[in-house]
Amino acid sequence: MNREIEVCLSPLLIPSYKVEGRVVVVIDIFRATSSICYGIENGALEIIPVASVEECISFKGDDYLRAAERNGEVVSGFDFGNSPFSYTREKVENKKIILTTTNGTHAIQKAKAANKIVLGSFLNLDALCDWLSKQEQDVLLLCSGWKNKYNLEDTLFAGAVVYKLRQHFHHFCDASIAAEDMYLLAKDNLREYLYKSSHSQRLKELNIEDDIQFCLKQNICNSIPVLVDGKLVAMS
Amino acid sequence: MNREIEVCLSPLLIPSYKVEGRVVVVIDIFRATSSICYGIENGALEIIPVASVEECISFKGDDYLRAAERNGEVVSGFDFGNSPFSYTREKVENKKIILTTTNGTHAIQKAKAANKIVLGSFLNLDALCDWLSKQEQDVLLLCSGWKNKYNLEDTLFAGAVVYKLRQHFHHFCDASIAAEDMYLLAKDNLREYLYKSSHSQRLKELNIEDDIQFCLKQNICNSIPVLVDGKLVAMS
Repeated sequence: MNREIEVCLSPLLIPSYKVEGRVVVVIDIFRATSSICYGIENGALEIIPVASVEECISFKGDDYLRAAERNGEVVSGFDFGNSPFSYTREKVENKKIILTTTNGTHAIQKAKAANKIVLGSFLNLDALCDWLSKQEQDVLLLCSGWKNKYNLEDTLFAGAVVYKLRQHFHHFCDASIAAEDMYLLAKDNLREYLYKSSHSQRLKELNIEDDIQFCLKQNICNSIPVLVDGKLVAMS
Repeated sequence: MNREIEVCLSPLLIPSYKVEGRVVVVIDIFRATSSICYGIENGALEIIPVASVEECISFKGDDYLRAAERNGEVVSGFDFGNSPFSYTREKVENKKIILTTTNGTHAIQKAKAANKIVLGSFLNLDALCDWLSKQEQDVLLLCSGWKNKYNLEDTLFAGAVVYKLRQHFHHFCDASIAAEDMYLLAKDNLREYLYKSSHSQRLKELNIEDDIQFCLKQNICNSIPVLVDGKLVAMS
């Protein structure tokens, strides 16, 4: 099979891409997909992504933890937001969580027509690439961006996936070529490179440097979150 | 003034950007904005961009040349498409042209709310940057892409503008940072770099290598096309 890998740089661009019959990898490095990967790795039973804070509040289910982030901060009244340190084993093992975030859950909603939706982050990079290499399907890497704008960190991760999977694919869109070159430029010190980023500057103002450092760790998770019936669970 | 320069990587992303009160530079390197810059340089009186082939046909005006391109080829029955070699002095001097192209005119339509819309290409790179450096306004570089998808050549040009204007701006979005780094990676041999591009491959199949080479020439034009009352004319 002549497999294709494409990178979609914003959820707003999804209508221009084929989603049906493909694996879509949703990427929101700072911090939704990093935290979800970490939570699933740490034994969370399921994480339900919803688009709005209202859905998160009105959702019926007494045994669910509720997580909501907007503009980088925990929404008032919620258990937690999307810091990876809220998804440690002691906090989430055997727990069910309902979650809404500024960018990541929005991207998941947009990709609903895909054959399979999985989540990627530097935390599970190699596990994800290993699994992707074995699928007989085209792949779309969907960057969540920041409020539908392009961001560097999601692009760098997409580029890392393209770089690691190059031998398994035959067709590469321009965005996948660009993402790979960006990754090669930045890979020796991702944190240093991202100091240039406008998003990184905004995150710095939120005082979450520890989160950023954590989300750039590579391969500390083996789990791949996959969307099944609207719920993110560990791929079996 | 703390000026901002942003890069919008696809016309579909325009709703996420501020357009009002800004200068928008529309970019479609292969080949619409390159050819229009060349045509205006060569004395075309006005070039009217319209969205559809139908508008191009139904437009009243016996003294207009009609140009239409779709999927890289001249639409059957039209005088010409968007090859720069159709916009030489002998063909366009003192002529008026109505034009529709796959990507470029679409992008111009999307940016209508801008304070000023100008066209950029490698052909007028320095003239454009010199003019932009003197404006007391924020700048949005709008890449036309290919059918709303990201493309490399428009990004490289946007990156060249960011690189040349860096000292005049204080705020840079992530896309402008990425575009500049792509440009720095490719600038010593743009044509060589673009061999990697999927769009370049498609253009190669159209047998327009001469057009591509021409559109990568730098600073052979001093004119800046500007949109006035729906018509592209030489900035006075």
